[in-house]
This record gives sequence, C-alpha cells and structure tokens, in this order.
Amino acid sequence: MAELEDDEALTLEELDEAWSLLSSEERLDALKEIGRADADDFFLQLNARDQAALVLSLPPHERRAYLRLLPPDDAADVVQECDDDEREELMALLDEPTRIEVNALLAYAEDEAGGLMSPRFARVRPAMTVQEAISYLRMQTVERVETIYYVYVTDTTQKLLGVTSFRDLFRAPGHKKVSEIMVEDVISVPEDMDQEEISKLFMQHSLMAIPVVDEANRMMGIVTVDDIVQVVQEEATEDIQKSGGMEALDEPYLEIGLMTMIKKRAGWLAILFCSEMLTATAMGHFEDEIARAAVLATFIPLIISGGGNSGSQASTLVVRAMALSEVRLRDWWRVMRRELLTGSGLGLILGLLGFTRIMVWPKWMYNYGPHQLAIACTIACSVVGVVLFGSITGSMLPFLLRRLGLDPASASAPFVATLVDVSGLVIYFTVARLILSGILL
Amino acid sequence: MAELEDDEALTLEELDEAWSLLSSEERLDALKEIGRADADDFFLQLNARDQAALVLSLPPHERRAYLRLLPPDDAADVVQECDDDEREELMALLDEPTRIEVNALLAYAEDEAGGLMSPRFARVRPAMTVQEAISYLRMQTVERVETIYYVYVTDTTQKLLGVTSFRDLFRAPGHKKVSEIMVEDVISVPEDMDQEEISKLFMQHSLMAIPVVDEANRMMGIVTVDDIVQVVQEEATEDIQKSGGMEALDEPYLEIGLMTMIKKRAGWLAILFCSEMLTATAMGHFEDEIARAAVLATFIPLIISGGGNSGSQASTLVVRAMALSEVRLRDWWRVMRRELLTGSGLGLILGLLGFTRIMVWPKWMYNYGPHQLAIACTIACSVVGVVLFGSITGSMLPFLLRRLGLDPASASAPFVATLVDVSGLVIYFTVARLILSGILL
Repeated sequence: MAELEDDEALTLEELDEAWSLLSSEERLDALKEIGRADADDFFLQLNARDQAALVLSLPPHERRAYLRLLPPDDAADVVQECDDDEREELMALLDEPTRIEVNALLAYAEDEAGGLMSPRFARVRPAMTVQEAISYLRMQTVERVETIYYVYVTDTTQKLLGVTSFRDLFRAPGHKKVSEIMVEDVISVPEDMDQEEISKLFMQHSLMAIPVVDEANRMMGIVTVDDIVQVVQEEATEDIQKSGGMEALDEPYLEIGLMTMIKKRAGWLAILFCSEMLTATAMGHFEDEIARAAVLATFIPLIISGGGNSGSQASTLVVRAMALSEVRLRDWWRVMRRELLTGSGLGLILGLLGFTRIMVWPKWMYNYGPHQLAIACTIACSVVGVVLFGSITGSMLPFLLRRLGLDPASASAPFVATLVDVSGLVIYFTVARLILSGILL
Repeated sequence: MAELEDDEALTLEELDEAWSLLSSEERLDALKEIGRADADDFFLQLNARDQAALVLSLPPHERRAYLRLLPPDDAADVVQECDDDEREELMALLDEPTRIEVNALLAYAEDEAGGLMSPRFARVRPAMTVQEAISYLRMQTVERVETIYYVYVTDTTQKLLGVTSFRDLFRAPGHKKVSEIMVEDVISVPEDMDQEEISKLFMQHSLMAIPVVDEANRMMGIVTVDDIVQVVQEEATEDIQKSGGMEALDEPYLEIGLMTMIKKRAGWLAILFCSEMLTATAMGHFEDEIARAAVLATFIPLIISGGGNSGSQASTLVVRAMALSEVRLRDWWRVMRRELLTGSGLGLILGLLGFTRIMVWPKWMYNYGPHQLAIACTIACSVVGVVLFGSITGSMLPFLLRRLGLDPASASAPFVATLVDVSGLVIYFTVARLILSGILL
C-alpha cells in the first residue's frame, strides 16, 4: 500500500480510509505504527464485525488488551460475530465479572432491548439523602457505569422505583431524600421489545437512556441513545433494501459473500419474473390485435412503465409513512382518497404528454398514417387509466400486506411495477378495442 | 369523536392516537381535560410543525406558557414553521435572553450544525480546580444548560480549549486543575456542516454531544445526540422517497398539500415518461419483426422488467452503501466486478426459468408451433443479457451521478428501470434476429 509505505506518520484518518483494503498483516503493522493510544481509539470506533476480525487476527497474547477496552454490551456484540470455537477463546480472555455480564447479554437477540442494553447503570436507594446519593455515586459506581445522565432508584431486589436526572440530583438540596425528588412514572421497556419500537420511544420522548426491566419490574440494564442512532440507521438500510425488491443484506455491500448476495436477490427476482410471465399470457389474448396493428405493440413499454412508476411512488410513500407511524391501518380510506386525486392529476399530465408526442412527432421520422388522432387518443386514455390504477394499487398494497400480518415493506417498487404491468396491459388493450375497433383493429 | 366523548378520563396515549383527526377546538378541549402537567408533556413530544399549529390555535394569552416550555433550539424550530406575521407575534412572547438566542439560531439553515445546536451548554475555565468547577456548575449554569454530560473548557473569549465528561470531572481529585484533566483534542464541527455529516461523526465516535465552533474556534453551541436520531430518520426518509422516483416530500404524507405532492411527483414521472418514449422509437425499428412474429411482442414486458428489477436491486444497494460511506467513488471497479458475477448468476437463474416456462407450458393453453425451442432459446439468452446489463447499469449509475456532482440517490428504481427498458428492447430484438432469422423472421 503506497499510503502505508511512505515515511510520514500515518494518521487515524488515513488508516480509516485504507482499512478495508489492507491484509490482516498490514493492519497489525499499521496499528503498531500509530501507537497504542491511537490504536485503541481506532479499535473502539470500528463496528463489531471489524472489531471481531481485528481481535481474531492478533496473536493470542495481544487479544486480551483490545477486548478489555470494550464495555460488556459491545463485547457481547463482538463475541456474537465469531463462530463457536472462537467464542470460547474470546470469552476466556474477559475478566470474571465482565464474562458473567457478557454471558447474560448473549442470551438475547441482537435486535431486542436485552441485546442492546448495558448492565452498567447508576443506581441509588430511595432512602438515601441527595448528599449521600452523590457521594455514593462518586465513590462506588462511577467506574462501572456507562452513563450518569440518569440515576435509577431501585430497592434491594433491584425493582425500579423511580428515576432522576443527574442534573436534578445535583441541583437538589443535599438533605432531601432521593424518594422526594425522583420521578416515579418511568418509561421502561421489557427485555424482548424490538429495537424499532424502542427507537420510536426515544424519538417521541427525547430521552438519553431507557431502562430495561423484566416482568417483575426488576432493572436489567439501560439502552442509551447513542446505540439508537445505529439502530435507526440499520432499520432504514433494511427498509431501503427491501424497497429495491430484495431481502435486506444485513452486511455491508462490499463484504457480503457473493453466494449470499445472489441468494438474497434471486428470491424476489424469481418471484417477480414468474409473476411477470402473466404479461405474456395476457398478451397472448391480444396477439390478433398486435398482428393487425404492430404500432400498438410499440407503445406497450411506455404505457406499462407509466403505471409502474406512479405505483412505485405511491407504495414508497405509504410504506415509509407506515414505518414512521404517520399512517395507520385505519387511515386507508384517507390514503385512497388522496391517491385517487393525485393519480388522476398525474395521469392527466402524462396522458397529455403522450398525446402531444404522437400528434407532433415529425412525419418524416415516423408515419402513424391516417389514424394518428385515434392512436393518440388511445394512448392518452390508457395512460390516464394505468397511472391512476398504479397509484391506487401502489398505495393500497402496503395496507393489504399489513392487514394480512405481512411486512408492508415488501410492497417494493419492482413488486408494484410487476402487479401494474399485467393489469396495465389489460387496460391498454381494452381501451384500444373500444377506440380503435372498426378503425385499425 | 367517540373517543373523546365517553366519560372515562382521556389518557395521553389516546390523545396521541386521535390528535391528527381532531379539529383545533377539540384539541384545546382535550388539552384542558388531561390537565396541565400532562398537557405540557404532550406538547413537548409533538414535532415542531404540530407544536406551531397548537400554539397558534391558542388564544393569545395562553400561548406564552407553552412557548416558554421549549429550549431555544426547539423554540427556533417552532418559529421557523410559522409565516412572517406569526413569527413576530411568537417572538414577542419569549423572554429577552431566550429571544436573543432564538434570533441567533434563526440565522442558520435547519439542516446544518447551526440550526441544530443549542446555545445552552455547561462551561468552565481551565484555571478552576475540579472542586470550583463542580460548585460553579452547581450554582450558576445548571438551570440554563441542556446537558451536563460534557463540560466544555473555554477561555474568556469563548475559545474552546478542551472538554471533560461530567463523569470524569466528578471522579477527579478536587484540588486538580480543570486544565489537567481536560482532553484537548476535541471533535468539533463548523456552524455550516451538513446534518448528515454530523450524524456520521456521532456514529463513528459514539458521542453524546458535539460542540459547534466558528472559524476562530469560539464555541457557539452544542448538538446533542437525541437531535441526531431525528436527523438520521429524516435523511433516511428523504433517501427512501428519492428511491421511489420522486423528490423528497419534506412533510408527512397525510399533511402535505395535494398540489405540492403532485408537483413533487410529477417532475420525475414526466422525465421518466419522456425517456421511456424512446422505447416506442426503438420498437418502431422492429415493427416488421413484430408484425411477422407477434409472439415476440408478448414477451417484451417479461424481458424488460427482468432487467429493470435487477437494475433496481443493484442501484438501491449501491446508493445506500454510498450514503453509509461503505462504498466510495474509487470502489467503482470492485462494485463492477461484483455485479458482473452477481448479474450473470441472476441472469442464468431467470433465463432458466424463462426457458422452462416456454418448453413446459401445456400445449393446450398456448401453441408456440414448431419453433418452440428456438423461441425458448431466444428468451433465455435475452434474459441473461438484459439482467446482466441491468445489474451493471444499476450499479454504475450512482457512481456516474456522484462523479458529475449530482445526488447518487437520484438513481432511483424507476430511473434505472427506464434506462434498462430501452436498451433491453435492443438486446432482445438483436438476439431474436440472430437466433430466429430464417426460422421465424
């Protein structure tokens, strides 16, 4: 690597840029070169996958130092990236209390509250005075807590009684009891709550952390907002990839194995391809018309793509609005009304464009013959119908999927386009029969 | 509203559910019913748009109480939602120091650091002892700071010298100087940094807040991570909507005006429609073939949609990977190589499906005549070519757009599908001429 061979000192930014291109040996050399403190910083900002790869590429005696930099929730994520043998090796490197914490966290799925939480939070007892609570925090727990933004008030069985922000504790008169200043009405989540739900709570209430409790309201840990930024980003990536008509990759594009990527893409592609075969069947019924007026066939892609595109717009909007809880199941009629109006408007605009195209296209380029006006009207009317139909189908499909208990995000642009292609052909040839029979057909 | 008329007390959740459906009078009644404290909570969790609507719907003498609940950055967002007359009215309701802060914030665009930041942060001087700093924070600023997670060390001209977490300040021996425990290497951002860049910094470094500084490194405010969750969500919404082939709406689907929505959707739809007209032109060149073998026309939608769908997948993946900085401009060749392999694999799968479809489709449903095998080969080869071409086009278009300084997110599924439609037809008819000339053509 040219960047690594020159004499000037390597900066963290350069290493970050070059990282994904380096072999594991070059990575080790680079880490040595930038020095211990910078290497630690660099390690901490890697994602769990890269952290795991880095630790495993180290000689056994150097692994421990890196692994111990991580708080238990992050260590659990790294361990989760490894296969079973490596897991045991890495777990053996942790100190006893951390190993117990990591083991407890490994029991949870990565995408639920238990898998996101840190077991290290600041806690005090209700009967303490404010002064005592501050000293207690200062002397005992501060080493072992991830955030002191909120201080949780628990009883001896770890039941969650209330919460106070560190700021409020700090401002309160020293002689007051913690129980007098705490807020009892705490927003908490169960261990198995999905990360997407949790992120909505964070946004709704502008929180910095949320406590995770078991059925008996005993505190298990806290989820902090910095982890939620990652969650929101991940969920958006999943939704975007689904909207492109495939399964979510769950791995960075350049790192996923080729076979895995083909598998994740081929499924939907094959389903869509087989559904699209219906277009060939539908067109089989109109083969006579096509043979008599081949000019009709030349407009097929134009007309069905107009429906597919307006349908993609509508489904994309509705799926996203559902993900943000802006649109709920019972809003289907409001959405339908909007798409009826929008679809008609858009259909008229495109219909007019299509009409103009056929009427003003220079005669020396293509001759539509004596039936130019009739053809133009056929195209215009079909486009209006297909765009309107596309908007309705695209906007209602996510409701249908959700109503059936399926993921509305499956209403991807390609899926909607495929649905609309088949029906668009039927609309087109029906309109053509109505307007052109006796003239061209 | 049935929910509001029954006798049981209204809960916050019910109000939240019903809110978007209520008239402004019903909203006021509902707020009175749930009581002052809950009404305040409810108001604080609304977004800026709804907060503005609520405040403006109140009689003038009740507006002040709600508006003053807001920290200056949120108040600025609310004021920004109003038109000019209302703005002045609302500004007059703020107390003097807040008005000055809000005014300063209004000078920034909503989506850059200055527009996101809060001017209320905890600051100390380097020469203070830890004990002095804690007392200083406790006595003076705590009322007026948004977070004490980080404490910023500034000189008398507000130049940023360093930072310490509150936790570290709290743990340090009381007699040490602040300058001895502070970290000097602070990650800060300029006032005009775009929010998307800022959110990347937050994720990379797991920060809870980032200071905003001017050119002279003077501290202007802090951006806190809870605002970043919103930013990530907003940016994802924009990207998703663009991926559906339209401009980002920038407003919730159910609230945006119909005319605005049509405008945001019609632009791209018209561009795509006009580009798709090229398919009609392309097919004009093959009208003879179509007239001679109408069966060829029946497969047109199937073949071009296969290319469009695989292209949508590729562009969606690459656009998202670029947004997450997983893929950079110089990675184009690595992406091309992956898509060459993936596209070939996917093309073979779909080609085989198409071949099987024609060979095994029961004779009594559709008779392809004596040339069944030749037709099946034509379809299979065309599908392989079109899918491969779609994958390459879809994956390279975002690179091209970015290289030209345009937004790679414009490489939407419908845009790619349109590009591939035109070229897909040419591929199809070229393959058909090669295989079928002398047989069917």
